[in-house]
Amino acid sequence: MTEKNIIKPRKLSGFMELMPNKQYIFDKMIEKIKNIYLKHAFLPLDTPVLELSEILLAKSGGEIDKEVYRFNKGETDICMRYDLTVPLARFVAMNSEQLHYPFKRFQIGKVYRGERAQKGRFREFIQCDADIIGNEELSLVADAECLKIVDEVFETLNLNIINQISNRNILFGYVEGLGYKDKTQSILTILDKINKIGKDNVCEELEKLDISKENISKLVDIITKRGKFQEILTQIKNLSENETFQKGISQIEEVYSYLKAMNINEEKIEFNLGIIRGQDYYTGTVFEAILPEHKDFGTVCGGGRYDNLATYFTDKKFPGVGLSIGFTRLFDLLDSNDMLKDAPLNNIMLQIIPLGDTLKECLELQSFFASHMVCEVAYENRSFKAKMKDANKQQIPYVIIIGENEVQTQIFTLKDMKNSQQYNFSKEECLEFLSKIK
Amino acid sequence: MTEKNIIKPRKLSGFMELMPNKQYIFDKMIEKIKNIYLKHAFLPLDTPVLELSEILLAKSGGEIDKEVYRFNKGETDICMRYDLTVPLARFVAMNSEQLHYPFKRFQIGKVYRGERAQKGRFREFIQCDADIIGNEELSLVADAECLKIVDEVFETLNLNIINQISNRNILFGYVEGLGYKDKTQSILTILDKINKIGKDNVCEELEKLDISKENISKLVDIITKRGKFQEILTQIKNLSENETFQKGISQIEEVYSYLKAMNINEEKIEFNLGIIRGQDYYTGTVFEAILPEHKDFGTVCGGGRYDNLATYFTDKKFPGVGLSIGFTRLFDLLDSNDMLKDAPLNNIMLQIIPLGDTLKECLELQSFFASHMVCEVAYENRSFKAKMKDANKQQIPYVIIIGENEVQTQIFTLKDMKNSQQYNFSKEECLEFLSKIK
Repeated sequence: MTEKNIIKPRKLSGFMELMPNKQYIFDKMIEKIKNIYLKHAFLPLDTPVLELSEILLAKSGGEIDKEVYRFNKGETDICMRYDLTVPLARFVAMNSEQLHYPFKRFQIGKVYRGERAQKGRFREFIQCDADIIGNEELSLVADAECLKIVDEVFETLNLNIINQISNRNILFGYVEGLGYKDKTQSILTILDKINKIGKDNVCEELEKLDISKENISKLVDIITKRGKFQEILTQIKNLSENETFQKGISQIEEVYSYLKAMNINEEKIEFNLGIIRGQDYYTGTVFEAILPEHKDFGTVCGGGRYDNLATYFTDKKFPGVGLSIGFTRLFDLLDSNDMLKDAPLNNIMLQIIPLGDTLKECLELQSFFASHMVCEVAYENRSFKAKMKDANKQQIPYVIIIGENEVQTQIFTLKDMKNSQQYNFSKEECLEFLSKIK
Repeated sequence: MTEKNIIKPRKLSGFMELMPNKQYIFDKMIEKIKNIYLKHAFLPLDTPVLELSEILLAKSGGEIDKEVYRFNKGETDICMRYDLTVPLARFVAMNSEQLHYPFKRFQIGKVYRGERAQKGRFREFIQCDADIIGNEELSLVADAECLKIVDEVFETLNLNIINQISNRNILFGYVEGLGYKDKTQSILTILDKINKIGKDNVCEELEKLDISKENISKLVDIITKRGKFQEILTQIKNLSENETFQKGISQIEEVYSYLKAMNINEEKIEFNLGIIRGQDYYTGTVFEAILPEHKDFGTVCGGGRYDNLATYFTDKKFPGVGLSIGFTRLFDLLDSNDMLKDAPLNNIMLQIIPLGDTLKECLELQSFFASHMVCEVAYENRSFKAKMKDANKQQIPYVIIIGENEVQTQIFTLKDMKNSQQYNFSKEECLEFLSKIK
């Protein structure tokens, strides 16, 4: 080989890359989420990471967003997807005739945002989305189903959550009812910032919109209401006669009645009028789940009801409701807060270590165990002592050492590496013993 | 909303996008492959899809390859990965001190090649790779382990394969032994084309390299040798005294002896001297699996031994052996040849259909079944008749209809949709009956 340059190995900043034993846990958690989605009869979708820019940027009229990775390949203007919703909209619009409704799909995949790298923000991250799409109309049972799924997902991940729910029509209608129909969107945008900029700044900004002091006080009052569902419902139910407001009330009541029929844990639901979810995309139910013992994690799952999924791609109407978990960020938070159960170094149950010239016999014995457990042979050309030391360091729970004697007698010493206890077993007895432990 | 433009929904050509019920099967197959890798104590790695161009193009000295998706984001020169091997090399070089050797990792992920779209070629496809990396040295047991994994993977996918194995040193040494040491690479490159361009053209090209007729005949003879391992071994064993040749013979004999200890199905192994695997990357064992009943599918899995994984990123030596399955292409071939078992339309076992105002009772009953099977409520606002028709169309195996009567008596009619048989059951009896069927 000719003289070569060594290039310093490095990866792009802002991209997560886990050690394989951590990745193993990451994958296990993803699998649990996937199984909840499947259990609710959602089927998987896997759209390409790359989309035509005119599709992905349809919403903004093709205008480029700094965050999006966009490039040309030949004549083609391409973007990397920045969420899984626009690709879903494109898919539904393209295949609307072939789908069965309500169309329940989940997608667990990577999305890309080239924003400034900072702690807890990733440029590549996995979203776990599940959506239910109707054809022209969609029952509110679908909203309840999504909330139920959120409940089950975090249950299966062993994470205690509070799911804060609301309905956008309530606030919309309330603002309308106060006589600010033409300013609704601006007012809600300001109110949505209350946790970021504080109450005083919100009041100040509302004043600039010519809202009376009395109404400002009413607005701040309603969006800070939160608590048990029935209590909050009773408090606000008659606050306005506005039609949209009353529609919101009746929708959330209906959704809640389904949740009860679904036997959801009511302790984990909070009625929170402060949940607005920024974008004007949502049109009914909205929700954001937090971990009450780790409020600093922020929203770990969010979603809601939208009137029309594919509005940029078709004239047909596809109302939907969905949930989204930004899993990479969640995992990073759990990891950096020491909330992952001690990550094992590997998935090995049994290691077979040759002593002398018994490698082939070790491989034969491995075949015997292999369909029942993860069993490895220490086949590297190293000293026996080094191998034993290594098994310890690798936290292998059980070891069998095979020398000439074991080959002849077919009686093996199984060593429990934690307590150094030893058992003399036939291979069948070994298998029986180890099968019970798992 | 202001007047909006409808954008015709379309996806980039050359990108696979399956209907969700097909994706369900795709995912199941991927999971099976993953489980074989895990069973052999490989741990998952998930490197970013994006890498610095200087890393990804290190091999070619930064020269751009037309196939690679490459672009700038700000000042950063970025590529989408085109395989999983360069990222693995980068990862090992970066983290070499933290890894345990032999380092066994698998990666199942998307890779990107912007080549001209054509049938059976995808610009985005999933590779399922497994590699074993040693520190300075690596036992030949690792080669056998990879071959064993190939065997098990296709067994679990219910696909009959022949794994064609060879060792590059045999051909290299043979050519050297004939006295063409300085032309070895060119000669092998020509020989590797025999299946594409035919024997006559190969002979013609070899003549241009000043190879004697006699030696051309010997070369063509040896690379067309294929058959049972022992038979071919006996035929070629003494063809050359060249040292490299004899090293190749002894390596493949050793690997084969491990395969036998591992109890591999010998019928599925073919010794095939024609397996060269183009690139000069491989340095020992090489293999390519084919489906004997579908030779037109070509190689469905390939791999081999390499001397040094991370040669561009470090001076340390990391020999390895690995296998790679281009799964997207394989799935596409299976699908277009009708080799996927009839894809079910969904994963639903039981659908509960409300008759009259019994939606909530249906949801309650669903909760009862939900942890045991995929059970759905037909909650959409449609006629009972439409729902029954739909259940049929959706090939739902079992249906329970809930009217006022059922709510009162708590006796439910379970309908087998295939044979129209009906059973009157309590919910517990229903569960028992359905649990047995699964």
